This record gives sequence, C-alpha cells and structure tokens, in this order.
Amino acid sequence: MSALEALIEALRRLPGVGQKSAQRMAYHLLQHDRDGALRLSQALAAAAQQVRHCERCHTFSEAALCDICADPQRDAGLLCVVESPADLAALERTASYRGYYFVLQGRVSPLDGVGARQIGAEQLMARAADDQVQEVILATSFTAEGEATAHVLAEALRARGIRSTRLARGVPVGSELEYVDLGTIAHALVDRR
Amino acid sequence: MSALEALIEALRRLPGVGQKSAQRMAYHLLQHDRDGALRLSQALAAAAQQVRHCERCHTFSEAALCDICADPQRDAGLLCVVESPADLAALERTASYRGYYFVLQGRVSPLDGVGARQIGAEQLMARAADDQVQEVILATSFTAEGEATAHVLAEALRARGIRSTRLARGVPVGSELEYVDLGTIAHALVDRR
Repeated sequence: MSALEALIEALRRLPGVGQKSAQRMAYHLLQHDRDGALRLSQALAAAAQQVRHCERCHTFSEAALCDICADPQRDAGLLCVVESPADLAALERTASYRGYYFVLQGRVSPLDGVGARQIGAEQLMARAADDQVQEVILATSFTAEGEATAHVLAEALRARGIRSTRLARGVPVGSELEYVDLGTIAHALVDRR
Repeated sequence: MSALEALIEALRRLPGVGQKSAQRMAYHLLQHDRDGALRLSQALAAAAQQVRHCERCHTFSEAALCDICADPQRDAGLLCVVESPADLAALERTASYRGYYFVLQGRVSPLDGVGARQIGAEQLMARAADDQVQEVILATSFTAEGEATAHVLAEALRARGIRSTRLARGVPVGSELEYVDLGTIAHALVDRR
C-alpha cells in the first residue's frame, strides 16, 4: 500500500468520512496544505498521548482533575449526568448551568450487552453519595437508549435516597408547532407550565 | 490551547470540515479510537514526507516516475491533460483510457492572477513536444475556468502544430432529459453523432 493509499485508509476511520471524502481530504492536504497535514499529524499524536479522563467526572482532561471539577466556584449541590464529553460541552456552551458533571461511558443498550455496569453506574453512585450533592440531573439523550439509561440510574439513585431530575422535554426553541413531531407535542402538553 | 482544542483546530483545516464535525471527529477518536488517531497521525506524516510529484506528469508519486509514466505498455501517442491528481484518478477508474497523463497545477483564473504560466503550461508544451505524442486530450473541467484553461492550452498547442481534442460534452449517462440543464442539452444536440 502506498503512503497515499494508507492516508486515505486512515482518514476513512473518521466519523462521517467515506471513500470519496477521504480521497478529497488526502489530495487537498498533499496538494495545497502539507503544513496542515503535519500540524494535524502532531495534534493527533499529542492529543492521543496527553488527553486522559478526569478522575472525578471522567470527561477529557490533561490534568488529573478537569477545569470544571477543579473550579471551587461551582455549585456542589448539583451533579449533571451526561453520556459523553461532547454532551458536557454542549451544556457548558449554554452557560446556564453552574454545577458539576459526571460523564458516563455511553448509554445502556441491552441488545449490545451494555448494562449499567459498563457505562459506569457504580462510579456515579460513589460520586453522588458525596454529602454535598443535593440533586442529580439526568441529561442523557431523549432516545430509547438514553431514556432507558436515565430510568436505570434514577432507580439506583432513589434506592440510595438521592433525588434525581430529568431535563425537560418539550418543543425546541425556534420551531413552528406544525413541524414538530407528535410525541414531542404530547410531552410538551403534559409538562405544560 | 489544550491538546484537545489544538486537535479540533487542526481537523478544521480538512476540506468540508467545520467546527461541529471537527469536534465530533476529535471526541470520537479520543473516546473510541485512539489507535485510529495514532494511525492517522503516522499516515499523515508519512504521506507529507514521502509523496512527491512525478517528474514527467506531475501527479502524486513516491518514486521519481509514477506507476503510469513508468509503464511502457501505455499508448505513447495519447496525452491527457487534467487539472489535478484527483481528476487523473477518476479517469483511471473508467479503465477506458490507455495513454499517458499530464497534471496541471489547477486551472487558469485571471481574477486570482493565475495564468497559463502558473498552472504549468510551459512544462506541458515541453512534454507534448515529444515526437511520440499524436494527440493531446484536454480533460479540464466543464466550468468557466476549466473551459478557459482548455482554450488557452489548445491555442498554445496549435501554435506548435500539436493536435488537441476536448472531452465530449453531453447528457450524463443515467439522466432523464427532463432534468438535464438546457446548456447541456444544447451542446448534446450540436455534438450529436
């Protein structure tokens, strides 16, 4: 396999990149941006070596504790549970949450043999048992698997006497009712305020 | 800038990758495929260092001559001119051309100050002056700039007494006439056979 073919093959492993895009990326880098290729090469190696998981919330971090867990200004009474570092980043961008996080290793998926144990439910229980935590916010996805995850965790938390809440379901901001799916409208009706 | 941010920044330089995709790719690699990240890092460095241009046709090659130019079985009477190594690859995949190639450095674009000189017209003239070349096939794009490129090169070749042809314009295979643009239909009518 030539170096060019090896590069196309490696680019195909990126999510959302097929044969054609991989080819276009490889040709672009070699023809117009070799400096970008070298920079990407170094960034990948550095990230793969340096980025670890925060000991406390398990999001990506280069230090033992991530910036959020290391910040004493946040509200220790709130613990928000998400499925991935990407979901944590999305919540942070809203700038409307000031508590701490706990990042699961995905979501339960019984068909794939992924249960509460595999996504780190035990570590979550240990973390939530912290006396300061008043409320655990379950911010898993609103998909079947995300809902199942939230359900399993809510049960386990309740058994330990820890209060949990779920993100509100409803009509997305900026959407016209006509184009919103019926399940969402039904939920928004039930949860009206 | 953290290693993760540096990685997202570097991924954004890939064509067709914006902030969101770059983030998704970085998170995916770090969470599920660190081996893929390291492999891609190595493939990028290897390709950027090893892939050079063929001395004869200027497509990508790791050797002084690319596989095609080094193949004595091809038809030395035909020389096909393309805009990029990607276009060469597309023509090769058709398996219907047995001559040699010449890869330009893009296409003329007077507004950007890119003229015949910048795309390598002189090298093409030197290559086409080879006694064996009977016909130069101009396979530049059927866009305004690609057509301008073909026109400029055809004039220069004619001045040197070298015959040039252009890829046929017409209705794409598999398309219904109703949905083909009028310019294409008009050309297909004129060039009917």
